[in-house]
Amino acid sequence: MSVIERWHEHVARGDPALLDALIAENCVFQSPAVHSPQVGKAITLKYLRAALAVLNNPTFRYLDEWVGADSAVLEFEAEVDGLTVNGVDMIWWNEAGQIIRFKVMVRPLKALNALVARMAAELSRAG
Amino acid sequence: MSVIERWHEHVARGDPALLDALIAENCVFQSPAVHSPQVGKAITLKYLRAALAVLNNPTFRYLDEWVGADSAVLEFEAEVDGLTVNGVDMIWWNEAGQIIRFKVMVRPLKALNALVARMAAELSRAG
Repeated sequence: MSVIERWHEHVARGDPALLDALIAENCVFQSPAVHSPQVGKAITLKYLRAALAVLNNPTFRYLDEWVGADSAVLEFEAEVDGLTVNGVDMIWWNEAGQIIRFKVMVRPLKALNALVARMAAELSRAG
Repeated sequence: MSVIERWHEHVARGDPALLDALIAENCVFQSPAVHSPQVGKAITLKYLRAALAVLNNPTFRYLDEWVGADSAVLEFEAEVDGLTVNGVDMIWWNEAGQIIRFKVMVRPLKALNALVARMAAELSRAG
């Protein structure tokens, strides 16, 4: 299975072991909110798990995807706090089929602000 | 030339006639800031021209692109008010090779806020 197929399987099944196997040790996470990249597998997993906890409700769906040789863009949509969050997961992987960079962008501004608040609460809850 | 090649030529040359020819009459523009789509060629051109005026300074560059059958995602970066604006142009076109939908997402939050302020000033100036 391709990296993107495995990503979709992880999202559909919510299986932490699948996510853990997908993320490379040196993975970098770039959030929609903050300029500074989060470096390393542990912090990347923390952000991805929090994002899934906030976004992956029954309204979550992928709308479209664009796949390159070693990277892809997946567009998604979900309702959070009554707002429609529209965003992209931008994913780069290595030759071993592990994700080395994960960037998220979100629109519109109101939805991004709501997401930032919910992510902060979720990250604080996760410790 | 493909739609994306023509888009790049328009950005490089800043030629309004190239942009005008690229945009379909029923084009829809979706901004990084606001949920509601802007419908029609006139308002799409207004937003795209304002965005170019704000972003297309000497620091502007495209980082990467993902191209599908009738759509593409172009990642860009530019400095605005001392902040790095990182974003995607998401472009859909019709069989006539005209753009029918143009969506922009931008990160991080500080850069989006700066862009919103600069776009409002530019749109007001453009009348």
